Amino acid sequence: MELSVEVLMISTGGSRIALLSEESANLLGVHSSDRIKITYKKQEMIAIVNIADYFSPNRIGLYQETVAALGVKEAEKVNVQLAPLPESLFNIRAKLHGDRLRELDLVAIVKDVVERHLSSVEIAAFLTAISIHGLSTSETESLSRAMISTGKTVDFGKGPILDKHSVGGIPGDKTSMLVVPIVAAAGFTIPKTSSRAITSPAGTADRVETLCPVNLSIKEIKDVVAKTNGCLVWGGSLELAPADDLFIQVEYPLGIDPMLLPSILSKKKAIGASHIVIDIPTGMGAKIKTRTEAYTLASDFVDLGKRLGLNIQCALTFGEQPLGCGIGPALEAREALDTLMGNGPPDLCEKAVSLASMLFEMAGAENARGLAEDMLNSGKAIKKMREIIASQGGNPAVKPEDLPVGPESAAVSSEQAGKVLWLSTDNIVRIARAAGAPKEKGAGVVLHSKLSENVHKGDVLFEVYAERNSKLSSALQLAKQLSPIVLSKKPQEKMILDQIPEKTTREKTFMLDR
Amino acid sequence: MELSVEVLMISTGGSRIALLSEESANLLGVHSSDRIKITYKKQEMIAIVNIADYFSPNRIGLYQETVAALGVKEAEKVNVQLAPLPESLFNIRAKLHGDRLRELDLVAIVKDVVERHLSSVEIAAFLTAISIHGLSTSETESLSRAMISTGKTVDFGKGPILDKHSVGGIPGDKTSMLVVPIVAAAGFTIPKTSSRAITSPAGTADRVETLCPVNLSIKEIKDVVAKTNGCLVWGGSLELAPADDLFIQVEYPLGIDPMLLPSILSKKKAIGASHIVIDIPTGMGAKIKTRTEAYTLASDFVDLGKRLGLNIQCALTFGEQPLGCGIGPALEAREALDTLMGNGPPDLCEKAVSLASMLFEMAGAENARGLAEDMLNSGKAIKKMREIIASQGGNPAVKPEDLPVGPESAAVSSEQAGKVLWLSTDNIVRIARAAGAPKEKGAGVVLHSKLSENVHKGDVLFEVYAERNSKLSSALQLAKQLSPIVLSKKPQEKMILDQIPEKTTREKTFMLDR
Repeated sequence: MELSVEVLMISTGGSRIALLSEESANLLGVHSSDRIKITYKKQEMIAIVNIADYFSPNRIGLYQETVAALGVKEAEKVNVQLAPLPESLFNIRAKLHGDRLRELDLVAIVKDVVERHLSSVEIAAFLTAISIHGLSTSETESLSRAMISTGKTVDFGKGPILDKHSVGGIPGDKTSMLVVPIVAAAGFTIPKTSSRAITSPAGTADRVETLCPVNLSIKEIKDVVAKTNGCLVWGGSLELAPADDLFIQVEYPLGIDPMLLPSILSKKKAIGASHIVIDIPTGMGAKIKTRTEAYTLASDFVDLGKRLGLNIQCALTFGEQPLGCGIGPALEAREALDTLMGNGPPDLCEKAVSLASMLFEMAGAENARGLAEDMLNSGKAIKKMREIIASQGGNPAVKPEDLPVGPESAAVSSEQAGKVLWLSTDNIVRIARAAGAPKEKGAGVVLHSKLSENVHKGDVLFEVYAERNSKLSSALQLAKQLSPIVLSKKPQEKMILDQIPEKTTREKTFMLDR
Repeated sequence: MELSVEVLMISTGGSRIALLSEESANLLGVHSSDRIKITYKKQEMIAIVNIADYFSPNRIGLYQETVAALGVKEAEKVNVQLAPLPESLFNIRAKLHGDRLRELDLVAIVKDVVERHLSSVEIAAFLTAISIHGLSTSETESLSRAMISTGKTVDFGKGPILDKHSVGGIPGDKTSMLVVPIVAAAGFTIPKTSSRAITSPAGTADRVETLCPVNLSIKEIKDVVAKTNGCLVWGGSLELAPADDLFIQVEYPLGIDPMLLPSILSKKKAIGASHIVIDIPTGMGAKIKTRTEAYTLASDFVDLGKRLGLNIQCALTFGEQPLGCGIGPALEAREALDTLMGNGPPDLCEKAVSLASMLFEMAGAENARGLAEDMLNSGKAIKKMREIIASQGGNPAVKPEDLPVGPESAAVSSEQAGKVLWLSTDNIVRIARAAGAPKEKGAGVVLHSKLSENVHKGDVLFEVYAERNSKLSSALQLAKQLSPIVLSKKPQEKMILDQIPEKTTREKTFMLDR
């Protein structure tokens, strides 16, 4: 059928959708969500049909992405035919019925996700099905390989390539900003890519961006790494395992994360990592709540790593409270710089040194712990960090206080004396996000009291920073309502952590950042 | 945040989607698929956010549905705020994790589906989860009640109200077009609503539409039923259990049908039915393949019926081949009229009389079988059918041959002699749809040989009808490739039904029509 193109001045964010009138859809025999093949000159493209009411029957509506890909102009003619259902859809249906999928089936799915031949409804069904049925070890391996093979890969031309990744889950975790310069300062290569926050107040890419650009090309990354041994960049636009970003868009509203393992390790493999430490923060306030869960996840990481030819060790870390004191992009970058300059909180120093020394040990260095401590304490790590900042296009002379925070801020003080018995990371995340983090980089929370510390009546418990007064007010109101820090003179006086009202909702915190 | 409306001259088919620039989405703190509350004058509306590239930051793009609902015009200002996630989404997430849902949880989900507060991704996850985890009996009941309460209901002011429904699965099943006039002719009330074809070559609404209008309002239906005791209308625009149509849009690409029971019975309850016969065609060529499956489904129907206050009996019917000979809207309507006029194929007569007599027995009529036979054989049923056709706005004097079929047609003849050993209903469906059914009403297939009939070399096996030559060619080509009718002189000579090639795909036929 020949139809005339109506160019829609909107982009869909990637999806290849074509609008048809009910009349032409009927003639073609297609339903909404069926696929059509659009032919323009010698170009062919598969698009997913949306049926629009009141749309002219001899036209086809194409969004910006499709128009750009076909190179077609307003009112030009294209040929439109019903396209068969993609084979990958039958693989998804098989997974819905609980079948094990073969590597070729999973490759077909991931390829069609990346090429936009599957609709978000179909991707949602796939992710829901694997979230419920789970994936066998060999399916996880196949999926990882499929995600790697449908994206770019980087070869630094030497080895070993070290890397560090956290599965996420506690706010204020700026460890990568210390581990990278420590490892690079010792002469090892560590090309760290990271993500922006989705459900948290800051991702590593958000933090580092307050110091220097993070949106580098693969060529620029190679240059930075050649000069400094390390980098701290945003992985989102590098097309390393690009299927993952498309999966995340669907996982986010559903509150599921069935792709945690293949997502992390496909990106590591794509960047060429050979030795990786995976940080698994574990505790009531973290994504991973129990040790049992953490050990299972750790062994899955090690196992999948072996299958992909990656040398992996996992660190089960204390996840009952935020790491350090600053929470929010600029506040965390300040704290990371401070720590590299010798003025950091002990938990952050300890975690960074421990993870770096695990990497040194894996890479065969002698006196790994001593080496990591030396890099941090001698000032070599801060020097290296400044080299990396400069290479990525930032100001190497930056001081922590140069990074703008606030300007609106307020302190929340304690109405009683006592010891910090419990601290809700979920609620601190909500307050920091209400204040504007991660999008408003100067927004966030600074903790003045942490677990088991003594607090006097009137002492500051935490400060809230915001870029706008309205957000500061919302955050403070939320802080008052949530009381994220629970005090007691003696633990036995405060055995009730929360009261459950008569009507409970099913709302649970969901952390997608990883 | 105040934004200026950009009216998009497109409808989305119901979804309430608002386009925002990345910039304003960031300021609001919303991601794609989050919800916003749009306020215009005193109107409030929840919409789901799509983030569009290259979209002006101080504008909000609204599709026709949203524009109409708000009554807003191009360039007018609306207030936009981040809306919290709907509670129903947490219920869906709970179902993903395998929780049993309470009635209030399911009501929240169905209400948000009908009010368009849930995105298709979220509905897909819900349907996938219930397809995998299944529904408990009380969940099925709650879901049915939720579907009823979110739509309209009809009260005919008298009883009993009889009804008949097929779970679907065999082509050519025009039984309702006989059962309705037989039952109505005997003085019982039978307001039959039915659907259009989704995956089949014809739904009852498609068949009846070749005789008279089927798109009646509830008021018109009441008038027709008051005059004739019966009707044969399309249920799709009556808003009886409207959630079902929204579920079907998502089930279709996924090839799942977890809502079969609540879907059918919520519509029956909404139309006020009290006594219902459910037809379950069972056999290799039907939706329900085995007797075990059929008995389980039947007992589920009876059980759910009791819970909803419906008197239900199920008929397990022979489903190894199409019913009658005609397949396709007009061809089937012709055959139904012919049968009412005394010239029908025996399988169709027998099925219609049996189902009608089950209804008579349930309603307490004496000599139920004799009554059904009498209505058909005495000509009272065809008289009643003509009354219904007239009341719905059609020509009561219509003759079968008045209904246009073809005009393109061709016969497929047998290249050998033998007995019909096997007949693939799936393949006949594919051929009829390739010929243009159900959208091209004159298209379809007429079978000249059915199971266990003797065929001579050169005898016509079936004819293909199409409205356009190109579709006839495609259908004939498919017919040649599929050979849907398998012959053998002696059954033992033809033990191999199909050969499975080395590479198998996971493609399976999916029948959503019900």
